[in-house]
Amino acid sequence: VLSLAVIGAGRIGAVHAASVAAHPGAELRLVADPVGSSAETLAAQHGARATTRVEDVLEADDVDAVIICSPTPLHVDQIIASVAAGKAVLCEKPVDLSLERVDRCLAAVAGQEHRVMMGFNRRFDPSVAEIHARVRSGEIGALEQLTIISRDPAAPPASYVAQSGGIFRDMTIHDLDMVTHFLGDVVEVSAVGQQLDADIAATGDFDAAVVTLTTASGAVATIINSRHCATGYDQRLEAFGPLGSLQLTNPTATHVRHFGATRAEATGPHLDFFLERYAADYRAELDHFVASVVAGTAPVPGLADGRAALVLADAATRSARTGERVRVDAAAVATH
Amino acid sequence: VLSLAVIGAGRIGAVHAASVAAHPGAELRLVADPVGSSAETLAAQHGARATTRVEDVLEADDVDAVIICSPTPLHVDQIIASVAAGKAVLCEKPVDLSLERVDRCLAAVAGQEHRVMMGFNRRFDPSVAEIHARVRSGEIGALEQLTIISRDPAAPPASYVAQSGGIFRDMTIHDLDMVTHFLGDVVEVSAVGQQLDADIAATGDFDAAVVTLTTASGAVATIINSRHCATGYDQRLEAFGPLGSLQLTNPTATHVRHFGATRAEATGPHLDFFLERYAADYRAELDHFVASVVAGTAPVPGLADGRAALVLADAATRSARTGERVRVDAAAVATH
Amino acid sequence: VLSLAVIGAGRIGAVHAASVAAHPGAELRLVADPVGSSAETLAAQHGARATTRVEDVLEADDVDAVIICSPTPLHVDQIIASVAAGKAVLCEKPVDLSLERVDRCLAAVAGQEHRVMMGFNRRFDPSVAEIHARVRSGEIGALEQLTIISRDPAAPPASYVAQSGGIFRDMTIHDLDMVTHFLGDVVEVSAVGQQLDADIAATGDFDAAVVTLTTASGAVATIINSRHCATGYDQRLEAFGPLGSLQLTNPTATHVRHFGATRAEATGPHLDFFLERYAADYRAELDHFVASVVAGTAPVPGLADGRAALVLADAATRSARTGERVRVDAAAVATH
Amino acid sequence: VLSLAVIGAGRIGAVHAASVAAHPGAELRLVADPVGSSAETLAAQHGARATTRVEDVLEADDVDAVIICSPTPLHVDQIIASVAAGKAVLCEKPVDLSLERVDRCLAAVAGQEHRVMMGFNRRFDPSVAEIHARVRSGEIGALEQLTIISRDPAAPPASYVAQSGGIFRDMTIHDLDMVTHFLGDVVEVSAVGQQLDADIAATGDFDAAVVTLTTASGAVATIINSRHCATGYDQRLEAFGPLGSLQLTNPTATHVRHFGATRAEATGPHLDFFLERYAADYRAELDHFVASVVAGTAPVPGLADGRAALVLADAATRSARTGERVRVDAAAVATH
Repeated sequence: VLSLAVIGAGRIGAVHAASVAAHPGAELRLVADPVGSSAETLAAQHGARATTRVEDVLEADDVDAVIICSPTPLHVDQIIASVAAGKAVLCEKPVDLSLERVDRCLAAVAGQEHRVMMGFNRRFDPSVAEIHARVRSGEIGALEQLTIISRDPAAPPASYVAQSGGIFRDMTIHDLDMVTHFLGDVVEVSAVGQQLDADIAATGDFDAAVVTLTTASGAVATIINSRHCATGYDQRLEAFGPLGSLQLTNPTATHVRHFGATRAEATGPHLDFFLERYAADYRAELDHFVASVVAGTAPVPGLADGRAALVLADAATRSARTGERVRVDAAAVATH
Repeated sequence: VLSLAVIGAGRIGAVHAASVAAHPGAELRLVADPVGSSAETLAAQHGARATTRVEDVLEADDVDAVIICSPTPLHVDQIIASVAAGKAVLCEKPVDLSLERVDRCLAAVAGQEHRVMMGFNRRFDPSVAEIHARVRSGEIGALEQLTIISRDPAAPPASYVAQSGGIFRDMTIHDLDMVTHFLGDVVEVSAVGQQLDADIAATGDFDAAVVTLTTASGAVATIINSRHCATGYDQRLEAFGPLGSLQLTNPTATHVRHFGATRAEATGPHLDFFLERYAADYRAELDHFVASVVAGTAPVPGLADGRAALVLADAATRSARTGERVRVDAAAVATH
Repeated sequence: VLSLAVIGAGRIGAVHAASVAAHPGAELRLVADPVGSSAETLAAQHGARATTRVEDVLEADDVDAVIICSPTPLHVDQIIASVAAGKAVLCEKPVDLSLERVDRCLAAVAGQEHRVMMGFNRRFDPSVAEIHARVRSGEIGALEQLTIISRDPAAPPASYVAQSGGIFRDMTIHDLDMVTHFLGDVVEVSAVGQQLDADIAATGDFDAAVVTLTTASGAVATIINSRHCATGYDQRLEAFGPLGSLQLTNPTATHVRHFGATRAEATGPHLDFFLERYAADYRAELDHFVASVVAGTAPVPGLADGRAALVLADAATRSARTGERVRVDAAAVATH
Repeated sequence: VLSLAVIGAGRIGAVHAASVAAHPGAELRLVADPVGSSAETLAAQHGARATTRVEDVLEADDVDAVIICSPTPLHVDQIIASVAAGKAVLCEKPVDLSLERVDRCLAAVAGQEHRVMMGFNRRFDPSVAEIHARVRSGEIGALEQLTIISRDPAAPPASYVAQSGGIFRDMTIHDLDMVTHFLGDVVEVSAVGQQLDADIAATGDFDAAVVTLTTASGAVATIINSRHCATGYDQRLEAFGPLGSLQLTNPTATHVRHFGATRAEATGPHLDFFLERYAADYRAELDHFVASVVAGTAPVPGLADGRAALVLADAATRSARTGERVRVDAAAVATH
């Protein structure tokens, strides 16, 4: 049984703590959060100890691995310190908003990269995983066009947006990781940002975007993003090849269809929140992390994948700002 | 090119006349209707002659075949006279509301049965035809459960209902013909009638019904009918066997889906009228008739199929009235 | 926090134990099973005590309520004893296979009926609950036709079937409870049994069936059952009224659609097992039980609902065996 | 009744001739084709005269309007000559592959533009028309993202491709007209071409492409094209706005769903040919043309729309060739 600590007792920390508690091969020992009451409340729910000091986690003999759920600016230091302390790490995305700091992190953990996993949960979505496996099996032939539509139910507060690093680093980064996951040989990025929401525009950020990524193999990926969607969380993906295509569709909360006088076959709205939509992902993600640590193998996605997504996000940001297409060093994003 | 006449210039006569006009192997020569202006209007649309006398049709040297679209009580006499005059016949369903008269008709055309086709259009629906062919091909194994849901958009006037022969002979008969088409070895009929519409109840008829038919092979068919359906014409069929099932679903007028705040994936309502829903059927039906007459082969469904559907409708009527299950002579309904 | 014991540590006992462990308002204290190792394994998983004696449950001061997951023949005695011992009871369906014994049970707990809930899990399925609420709200008008298609992925062993009480008491009983839930005023039952599976036929039971139930209100319910279904668990329900209809459709394991050369839009197969299909139901069912016990109100469905379903199952059995329709005492099934 | 001539008796000429023949307000008088036998065959089918000389059409007193279905390089001269001869014109898309020649055409018919309609049939697709009307009605709020996926079942011969003007002018032009139709204020075009098919690559053309179009209003349109699609004709469109979205989905030939052991709910493949997919469009297009000519109003889309689509296709071609985004004169594409 792997012993874990969670650093950061916020919303996503609570999700991971619950996953650990429910996992037959894992045990939650410690929860750390600078706000002591938050740490204590979460720890108490799962019979773990609480602390306000990250150092306590690093020094704990009964902690094999840590899940980093702290604010993004703390990620790099905590990854480096955890690895130095001999802990395996599962870190929430992104590694950091600065490529320079990501590279510093990679340098610091050199030789121990296989001890760090990045929490790109969507790779572990059962439907995404199924499509990925079927594409890899050759069912649709060589992937030619990857189309991702990804829209959130509603925009976060402008105050959050202002510190988010921009839509491409904050929101699109999940979709860019999908591109890395499915294609991985991106050579050029072209992005168009939209400013339809005045509050977000006031922060200088975009609230919607379309990104086109071309690859060395000739495949093209398209990402269509929006910070809002009336029907709820809208997360679709289409892998198209010469033999057919595979589509990820949106789940609804129930399996009810209504037929009335003005319409036939109306379902309820889509799930409205990412924790609800992607609940199964976090469990599968933890499962992969635990299995990798136990086996001593490198979990995927790792730090290099985190870096690749950021390289693409930076390129998209630059493209949207300059109106130019931006070349990407294929080696930087071809992580596997 | 086969030369045809249409007897009866009403709604369904106009459908058949247009199908003949558009058919490359058929020509419309004559339209007969006791209301001269109706005959003339329809004939003029397609460059044909008009008459008020059925005798003119029977005597016309340039008419090879007739399509009988007159009121039901006239069908039997017109079938007998047409066959006697050497014409092939496509007769709208039903043959008659009285089994005795149907048997008289069969006796009168004995030896010439292959010259008469009954217009059970649903057999020619492209979707029904596809399901039938796939069931016959063994794709789902031996048919075990056939479920038909068949609902009209709105009830006809009570005055029509009063002369219709009752829901089983007027509406269910199409579904009963489907049972004959897919199974054909019915041995028992159990029917429940519903009186939810006061106007129809006042005529003594039912406006909804559920019929269960058991067969010698062990398969069971279920028919669920209603004279009204808010979403429009509701015509579904499910063939279930050990290897899978095949379903007929309802078409909508356009291929648009709406996603809004209160629902995802709403289509428009179903098609609202049988002529619209089944437009393709009438063309395919005529095509089979023309091809059979030209080849000298027996068209299907024939008079025996018309009789089988009536036997089942009579049994359902009796069952619904008495509350008893009614045995059926399997030989009477096993037409093929 | 409500303290619970589980009697019976088999497959369904394990499901309930896990639900209790995960419920914030409930605690698992005791697991009883005549096979000591089964009780101990399940108890250990959730930090509870184990015993081989039901008496230990009845005598335990720290147990407020019991969940009875033992074999059906033990249900009645354990319900009676538990209620007598002051415990609230959630009992797996059915109460018993014998109406006489059910009535004895009701007599024994007279005045304490509100302490017993029957585990008809489907009422708690989120989709069924949604449809029920929308029908009750009047969205489709007065319910006219209720159509239930309910098929299992594969038949149980003939040895199980032989002791099951027959398809109507073992399998259809869930669907009959749906009829009670949605309509409740059944006056007549007509059932047709099918013997398509030789092994099951050898036990004298049916492996497929169609049941028609008429009600005092004029609504008609139809149930179509099969012990096998190639596509997996097939659980559909359609509530039809004058203003529209609501359908329960089948979930699939993932949200992937494949489009290939021979077909468009193929999903994966349906969920293949009732524990998987109905996982959410058991949690919602427990939630209702816990809330009712805490509030001192009568949980629904109760013993009377369990009796009503058995009355209908008995009627269906008799109808299928005799070929006659069977009248039902409306008072016996109108539980609310 | 409007009298028409068809110039060009090829595949699309035959479609239009049949539409005219079936239209109650139109009559086919003349079919012209340099291949006399083609003209005669088509004319005979609909009781019209035939000629090998376009001049005969221009001089015919009994011809009010012409439908130009000749090869693209002949369009401009035939439009000019027809308008000069007093005929109304419905011309198949595109006007021409050269913007210079299109401008020459516009100059030549100056003052008579309302006598020329361009055959962008997709605007008349019932589903597209419904979406357009619902967007215009404000149902989804201001259009923010328009996403078009448009794939042909199979690539045309390389010999055709070589003379087609390139994928953007030949295939994407239909989708670009959709952008004009829905948005109309494009200011920049960014296109990526793909060369996945060696035969087409040998001609120097692309066989797949992704085009992003930004507009003055802030909306963005994305077009995803491929010359092949295993599932058949793939023609989707999604209009997304703050209040919801509207999707155009692909029709299938029949309404059958198959459920088997390895999958649930498989439909048949999409329609495989544009004439089949868009049959209804050509009839609606002709209807609009006839009504406009009779009323003396300007049909839409007109020559200016044909020019706008070509401007966008030229921009996409340049963008794909240079790797630069291309600015567009908004006035050139804002036709309404």
